[in-house]
Amino acid sequence: MARTPEKFRESGVDVRIRTQVEEIDAKSARVRLSDGSELAFDILALGTGAIAIRPDISGTGLPGVFALKRLEEALAIKQYVGNEACRKAVIVGAGFIAMEMCEALRARGIETTVVHRGLLPVGRWDPDFGKLIATELEKNGVAFLTNVETRAIEKGADYPLRVVTNRGDLDADLVLLAVGVRPDTALAKAAGVPLGKSGAIAVDFSQKTGREGIYAVGDCCESYHLVSRRWVHVPLGDIANKQGRVAGANIGGKAMIFPGIVGAQSFKVFGLEVAAAGIDDREAAAAGYHPASAVIWGNAIAPSMPGSKKVGIRLVADRASGRLLGAQALGETGAVSRVNALACAPWAGLGIDEIGYLDLAYAPPFSPAWDPIHIAAQTLRRKM
Amino acid sequence: MARTPEKFRESGVDVRIRTQVEEIDAKSARVRLSDGSELAFDILALGTGAIAIRPDISGTGLPGVFALKRLEEALAIKQYVGNEACRKAVIVGAGFIAMEMCEALRARGIETTVVHRGLLPVGRWDPDFGKLIATELEKNGVAFLTNVETRAIEKGADYPLRVVTNRGDLDADLVLLAVGVRPDTALAKAAGVPLGKSGAIAVDFSQKTGREGIYAVGDCCESYHLVSRRWVHVPLGDIANKQGRVAGANIGGKAMIFPGIVGAQSFKVFGLEVAAAGIDDREAAAAGYHPASAVIWGNAIAPSMPGSKKVGIRLVADRASGRLLGAQALGETGAVSRVNALACAPWAGLGIDEIGYLDLAYAPPFSPAWDPIHIAAQTLRRKM
Repeated sequence: MARTPEKFRESGVDVRIRTQVEEIDAKSARVRLSDGSELAFDILALGTGAIAIRPDISGTGLPGVFALKRLEEALAIKQYVGNEACRKAVIVGAGFIAMEMCEALRARGIETTVVHRGLLPVGRWDPDFGKLIATELEKNGVAFLTNVETRAIEKGADYPLRVVTNRGDLDADLVLLAVGVRPDTALAKAAGVPLGKSGAIAVDFSQKTGREGIYAVGDCCESYHLVSRRWVHVPLGDIANKQGRVAGANIGGKAMIFPGIVGAQSFKVFGLEVAAAGIDDREAAAAGYHPASAVIWGNAIAPSMPGSKKVGIRLVADRASGRLLGAQALGETGAVSRVNALACAPWAGLGIDEIGYLDLAYAPPFSPAWDPIHIAAQTLRRKM
Repeated sequence: MARTPEKFRESGVDVRIRTQVEEIDAKSARVRLSDGSELAFDILALGTGAIAIRPDISGTGLPGVFALKRLEEALAIKQYVGNEACRKAVIVGAGFIAMEMCEALRARGIETTVVHRGLLPVGRWDPDFGKLIATELEKNGVAFLTNVETRAIEKGADYPLRVVTNRGDLDADLVLLAVGVRPDTALAKAAGVPLGKSGAIAVDFSQKTGREGIYAVGDCCESYHLVSRRWVHVPLGDIANKQGRVAGANIGGKAMIFPGIVGAQSFKVFGLEVAAAGIDDREAAAAGYHPASAVIWGNAIAPSMPGSKKVGIRLVADRASGRLLGAQALGETGAVSRVNALACAPWAGLGIDEIGYLDLAYAPPFSPAWDPIHIAAQTLRRKM
């Protein structure tokens, strides 16, 4: 149930929409607004979010070229797709937002091409899984072009836009720039609020920044990663929600901490569930762990049941301690639930031996007696 | 891929089917077989399983009266249902096997009645959930009769069988006795193998019994419960599989332990998923915890997505330590996956505050940003 600014005002909360904060003066504890007025504060909470990165090429400001981070951008895309006879879309980038938009655009019957500077989509996931995602795109009529350097976006002839690349030009009614986001820290930086190593605003477990009286929450700030034990920038909506509530509680006088994240994430692309939690081999090695990993394919539900599907599980563990460090999963079904079943495990420091014999709620309509999680852990154990 | 006794013999393993062990002589380390011969052993592994309990009434041996624990019983039911013009079935008992059989019998078009001595099915689950399961039975044409005392099974007139109860007689072609199982410990007891408090064979973490050289695995023995920290009897197939492998490893010279269970369990009844892990309020109190609990209804997937369904979550935590002790879930979808997402939590001693902010793999097709798990934990926290 959305509340209007009027509703907030009735509760004594002054909500100002379409109002830009131009500057924060941390010393005098005042913010200067776009209308020239100032507001004094005892407590300031920064929720400036993240900004979609625009690649450094010409033409990204042309009509029909969009990014997708903020609600306004989503509404603008929806309107554009609805009003114009939008036939062809080109997506620059192959992260999870690009994947979700492939499905959304194809559902509208729009011819969709992904241009990617690398070889496989969604770099967080194992190449074995990346290949299957690329196949899923092609199966659903998405052209997935690899090793492409996008050089410019121009006005076109037959189509309103032309994407110029090192491998030829592509016509488009719509171009979506999906090459990642960066934390919006301009205001914070100017006010002397310290940033972390990731480039996002540094916070503590109460969501306080390094400046007295200033909190930060959401995509503009860091989170503590319970596996790498580092402060990282993971701009995802569920984390933002949690941090907002923790900051609110502390501001309101109720002691509360945000315990941190395990890097759990998922997306759907056409018929595939894709999920991950924890860290991958490279991140593990960077944190000083000794990673070993294994990928297995198991049955999402008991193979005796009708409609059984395969699900792939990839686990990473530390050779030295035996601890589970990360999990990835992909399949038509049962992938997200497997990653979630392991979401508490790195938090709890569970070892790969324990994961291999984890007590899960088995019944044939929901899993085999030996769940793919067990098989993955036992396979990895034998490699260690 | 099932292996025949011949195949085993080729690998040097002497498998004897249709052979009963009549007696174990632990002192001389020999077993006496039904054909009168004896076998000496260095190591003996007991996997005698559990036996379906037959209520102490007359007529349980009549043709058409079945229990369902062993494969042979399942095959006999299948044959009976296939060969006879089986129109009416009466199930005595309302546990999860009864629930699964309701669905199986209705799928064959058989008129099915459950007679239950209590008020609600599956006593492990909260009455709120029990009521919904009873409604699901009725919605699918199963008559669910409560407060019924089954007094006898007799030969009938219009139908082969008649179930005599304190609330009238019921005609039946088939009667299924589903009033629970007990561990089959006769051989073990006679051989002086110690039983645990639960009545099942006592084992240690290596699956060794109290008798040198004798192991036990599966439904005949106990498991260590990681939440109640007691040895319990939980006769479920996935646990049996794990214990078998642990015993096998130890017997084969590879040190291995079975780390224990959290009591995770699930079943499907028509359109409902039902799952639980951990302990309920009564078990918690019996173990000296100070239980508090809450039930909430949340969205299994983001409410903005088509086909969103409600899922109920019930959590139990300890007032003193804040620790999560148990979880139950029920819904058309997303119930088993929620319980599995919490399967590591009691193991790890996670608190209700941490569960309220658990990092799960959120995406709208799979969950709301605030998962029902979070909402349940936060609701329970406020009650504590």
